Order: sequence, then structure tokens, then C-alpha cells
Amino acid sequence: MRLPEASELNLITRISSKIKTDSSVICGIGDDAAVLKYTQDRYLLYTCDMLIEGVDFTSRARPEQIGHKALACSLSDIAAMGGAPKYALVSLGLPKRDAQGFIEGFYDGLRKLAGKFKINVVGGDLSACDKIIVDVSVIGQVSKRNLTLRKGARTGDIIFVSGSLGGSIYGKHLSFIPRIKESNYLVSHYKVNAMMDISDGLSLDLYRLCRASGVGAVIYEDLVPVADQAKSFDEALHMGEDFELLFTMPASLARKLIKSRGNIFKAIGEIREKKFGLKLITRGYKEKVLEPKGYQHF
Amino acid sequence: MRLPEASELNLITRISSKIKTDSSVICGIGDDAAVLKYTQDRYLLYTCDMLIEGVDFTSRARPEQIGHKALACSLSDIAAMGGAPKYALVSLGLPKRDAQGFIEGFYDGLRKLAGKFKINVVGGDLSACDKIIVDVSVIGQVSKRNLTLRKGARTGDIIFVSGSLGGSIYGKHLSFIPRIKESNYLVSHYKVNAMMDISDGLSLDLYRLCRASGVGAVIYEDLVPVADQAKSFDEALHMGEDFELLFTMPASLARKLIKSRGNIFKAIGEIREKKFGLKLITRGYKEKVLEPKGYQHF
Repeated sequence: MRLPEASELNLITRISSKIKTDSSVICGIGDDAAVLKYTQDRYLLYTCDMLIEGVDFTSRARPEQIGHKALACSLSDIAAMGGAPKYALVSLGLPKRDAQGFIEGFYDGLRKLAGKFKINVVGGDLSACDKIIVDVSVIGQVSKRNLTLRKGARTGDIIFVSGSLGGSIYGKHLSFIPRIKESNYLVSHYKVNAMMDISDGLSLDLYRLCRASGVGAVIYEDLVPVADQAKSFDEALHMGEDFELLFTMPASLARKLIKSRGNIFKAIGEIREKKFGLKLITRGYKEKVLEPKGYQHF
Repeated sequence: MRLPEASELNLITRISSKIKTDSSVICGIGDDAAVLKYTQDRYLLYTCDMLIEGVDFTSRARPEQIGHKALACSLSDIAAMGGAPKYALVSLGLPKRDAQGFIEGFYDGLRKLAGKFKINVVGGDLSACDKIIVDVSVIGQVSKRNLTLRKGARTGDIIFVSGSLGGSIYGKHLSFIPRIKESNYLVSHYKVNAMMDISDGLSLDLYRLCRASGVGAVIYEDLVPVADQAKSFDEALHMGEDFELLFTMPASLARKLIKSRGNIFKAIGEIREKKFGLKLITRGYKEKVLEPKGYQHF
């Protein structure tokens, strides 16, 4: 189960292997957000997401939607760490033509979402560019005991997702509400062993979580919640842009979660030993290798 | 002395007037970096800078130079606040063709500068884009007593710049060392009333400092240090990309600074009352209005 040499994950692994950090960096490159020393019982979380016209949204997307999505993606990263977002910076590159109109709409969408989660938008940068480019950086906080990394999954854990998967690019990706409240509920009531958000597709992001944790996994076609807008099960597996939570917890807690919030959080499989690899059990009970086929930028 | 309605400054003023922040935000949109509550005696500083191929560097710039400049611009913002940078996130959009080669060079340049100032590069984002786009966000810290905003200039203050101005786009803008050490020296030995970095040209950035402080200013052609690479005095006034410090302090301290570090910090003029406006005294002792003509993205 190897990705091609030039894949995004391998590029990132290569970059991060050369970068030295001091002891104030609890977790650097490779998770949804960086984790930095802060107070006695809290960490700072720090993340950014770049959106590019033609890749992350089309030229038909409204400015309000682009502003919303730009912030929502970074908030989703903070949610994936079990934390609460607090500050945002917004870098915006856009064509000079109708810049003013665009900016008004863009900030309307962004501000509305920021207000919902009490995020302070504290600055940014504005540049002329022939395409629309947005990069939103966010600082958040997390209680030390609530921090959830990708790497904590253990053999026997039950694998969950929030909401439903697939077909997001037909519309939901421009209006999704980042799972901050759901994440906060999870980390304050349960012991979540590993968590990340699904941005590039379940198969690729589960592969990343398993690789970080040094484990394998099995998921069940029957159990994966397919969104109404998805056109096939494959879209739920590989399409990406879901921005749902993917997480694992011990089986005993999993039963409790299913009972109390089974409507939002769906168990889709189980963590196995590393040598098991990544498998999918089909509706016909056939075991297939689950290829990490989600969206790769490189 | 008004900028056109659609100017960058007016756009930013319009955006920021609609954005609400809570009491943990000491200073939001409009300075070189945001200032956030942190510990009893320190603030967090938070900034970002977006660089775009064809605007901030040409396609002839080497990957190492782009990596260097991308980080250096954000570090310059932290220096302008009197602070010390500590963490950086790097968002990179680039063409798929030769991505791997570019990334290696880019991170070599960036890492070298990060090492010089002990910056932890803790994450980022990687996207495919037909042009090279970089956005670097930086978190820094500053002692409360050392914080220098744009808005503190007072009538009678002497205006200083570090280094020399003009002609940076012929080369220096790709290799400049951000004035972190110089800024640290200033704020720990002197009472600096106002400070910012010169990124868009002395005339425009001095205008911004004066507008933020509610004051006017006079500078002297004779005193403005013109860089060797500048082709004219106008380039020193308006060209931008200098990334030098622009700051003001009371006249009594100014004399002390000129004596001890007059080789690096040059007095170029004096803060006046607001109604005085912005003036330049030419070599022939003629008083001219100093138009803010530096680089404007919009």
C-alpha cells in the first residue's frame, strides 16, 4: 500500500523531515493543525488553507460562498484537533476588475460564519491576481486533555464519521458548517483516540490516519453513510470535500456514542493491525483492498 | 490629501469597519500585524503576506529566493511591531510541472532564513495552481512595553528609516534580511512612538503612519538615504519593496540614537500637526506636497 513517489503525502514527508523545530512545538507538519505550547492546561492550534479558483471552487461560485468556504476549511482543521478556533487572517488575491464588489460579498460570507463561532478576523493581505486565491490562517486553542491527533488510533478502535459522505462538490462544499460543535461534544464527553477531517476523500484520509497511527483498518460498505447528493458509493469513498470528522474510539465508548448520538456519528468499521492493511467489506461480504484514491493535489 | 475611493487603504478601512472583534484583540486590521492578548507581560503578534508570481517576483526568480522572500516579508511585519517571530505556516500554490524541484529549492531558501531567526515552520498547505502563489503566516511575541504601532507618532517626533531606500526591485527584494535585530535593538533601548515597515514606498507608507497617528510630516530630500541601486530619488520615495523600518521618536532620544547607531538609522524629517499635511523639502529648499505614490495593489 504505497503512494507514488511524487505524491502529496510523500512531498510533505520529505519537507518535514528536513525541518527542525524547538520543544515548544508539540506537533508540527503533518496533522490538521500545528500544536504549540501555550498555557499550563492549553495548547495553541495553528492552521491554514489555500483555496484556488478552478480547483477549490469554480468561477460560478458567489463571493459569499467563497468567503464562507475559505474560513470553513480552516475551522474544520481546528475542529479535527478537538479545539476551538479564535482568530483568523485572510489573504486574498483577486482580479482588479470588480474587486470592490467581490470583496464586499466575500467578507459578508466570511463574517457571517465568523460570527457564528465567535472568530475574530484580525487582519490579512490583499493582492491583485488574475485568478481568485484565498488563504485563511486560523489560531485556536485546545485543552491539553482534549487534543486529538491523527496518530492515536489503536487496534480494536471503532471508526466513525460524522454526517454523510459523497457528492459534496455538487454544492455542499460551498456552504458546509464546520463540525466544531460536534467535535467539542466528542472530546468533552468521550475519549477520542484519533481524529481528522475528511477533505480529500474517506479512502485517502483514512489511509493517512492509519499511516500516522501505524495501524490498518476495515470499513463496511453497508455502514458508510452515503449523502443524498452522492451519485454512487464510490463518491462517498473517494470524492472528497466532505469536511466531516473521521475519528476512532474504543469499542466500549463507541456503544455509548451510538446510543446517544448515533444519528450524527456513524460507526463505519474497525481499526486493525498494520499488517492487515486497508480493506473494504462490500455489501456482498467480499473483502477488497481499499485503495487510497481520494483527491491529490500532486 | 485623499486617496482614490477604491484605493487599497479605503478598501481595508471599509472591511475593517464592519468587522467586530472581542476584547482579546488589542489591535486588529490595519497595522503590520494583529496584536492579541497572551500572557501578563506579552502579546501575541499575528500576520500574513501573500506573494504572487508576476507581482511580487518574476518567473526568473529562483525557488530559493521566493522561499526566502515569502518568509522575510512576514518577519518584517513582526519586526515592525517591535516583536520576535516564532512560528510560520506556509501555503504554496504552484504548477504541477517540476513541483518537486521547486519545492526543494523553495524550502531550502525558506529554511535557511527560518534558521537564522529560530523560526519554527510548523505546517502549511500545498495546491496546484498555474502561477506560483505563496502565503506565509507568522506568529510572534512582543513584550507589552515594547509594542510599537503605527498610530503613536507625535508632533515633534523625529522620523527615521533604517538602511537606505529605492531600487530594491532590481534585486534586494529577493534577498533582504528582515530588520528583526535592528527593531529589537530599538525597542529595548529607546522609546519608539510609532513604527512600520516600508513595503509599498516611503511616501505611501509615511502617509499611512501619519493617517494612523492623526499627524502630518515633513521630510528632507537631503536626508533620505538613497540606496546605491536606486536610479533616482523618486525611486527612494515611491518604489517600495524596501522592507526597511520607518519609525518616530522624541527629539531628545533621536539625538542619542543618531550618535550611537547613526550609521544604520537615518533621521529623515519630523512629525508635524495634522493640518500641515505631508511635505517634502527639496535640495533647493523648496517645499513640495509629498504625494503618496507608492505601490498600490488596487
